[in-house]
Amino acid sequence: MLKGISPLLSPDLLRAIAAMGHGDELVIGDCNFPAETMGKHCIRADGVRGTEILDAVLGLFPLDTFVEAPVTLMKVVPGTLDGDPPIWNDFRSIVDKHQKNVKFGWIDRFEFYARAENAYGTVATTEQALYACIILTKGTLL
Amino acid sequence: MLKGISPLLSPDLLRAIAAMGHGDELVIGDCNFPAETMGKHCIRADGVRGTEILDAVLGLFPLDTFVEAPVTLMKVVPGTLDGDPPIWNDFRSIVDKHQKNVKFGWIDRFEFYARAENAYGTVATTEQALYACIILTKGTLL
Repeated sequence: MLKGISPLLSPDLLRAIAAMGHGDELVIGDCNFPAETMGKHCIRADGVRGTEILDAVLGLFPLDTFVEAPVTLMKVVPGTLDGDPPIWNDFRSIVDKHQKNVKFGWIDRFEFYARAENAYGTVATTEQALYACIILTKGTLL
Repeated sequence: MLKGISPLLSPDLLRAIAAMGHGDELVIGDCNFPAETMGKHCIRADGVRGTEILDAVLGLFPLDTFVEAPVTLMKVVPGTLDGDPPIWNDFRSIVDKHQKNVKFGWIDRFEFYARAENAYGTVATTEQALYACIILTKGTLL
């Protein structure tokens, strides 16, 4: 335990987000995401929700202001879900809490995988909501 | 860079202090300390002063309240210095800034080495002041 640091930020996750530089990407994967095959580092967060990790990470992690959308979600594969996944509203609220005027982007499933493969790392949560994977692009402290 | 985290806390140092538990010890070594032969982890902080690292670490690291003296210094070896090393006053001020009523302890050089060997890790600073090594015992968040 450290003063003012969420206990959800494991030593490995803390190390990862500190080591990342401008433009590096962190994936927060849900329970179905192939986390261990993506990115240079896979950091386990078993028993933890994606929303919880997102909130803890954004307490320290600045989102990129140099790109249009520093938060990226996976588009719903046609025919798999009616309407938007409810968890996207939760992601929106959490992001808004930490940083103002952040735009979200959406990409297809396999484009999402390609981005994730090039990411700095992936947090493997056990979030059970559908379409609950999210890519965060790291910014700078202005 | 992370929001609210000192840039002196490298990813490896951040990981170490997060991974340490109650009673684990972190050594901040000066430029003469045999840091790479002590403790399980040696974390380099070249170009950084011991006072700077102490201040950055204590911003996050709770000192142990279960022991008499959670801060330990090395006794001056007789004949090597007149009076107390001036940096001890700086260490005192930095500790007081972060936590109230913290007692310091002093041990002989080789007892200090023995403690350091069993420490979780050592930060290898390039602090050039004399007798500028310090052992911090980690506490809990109460």
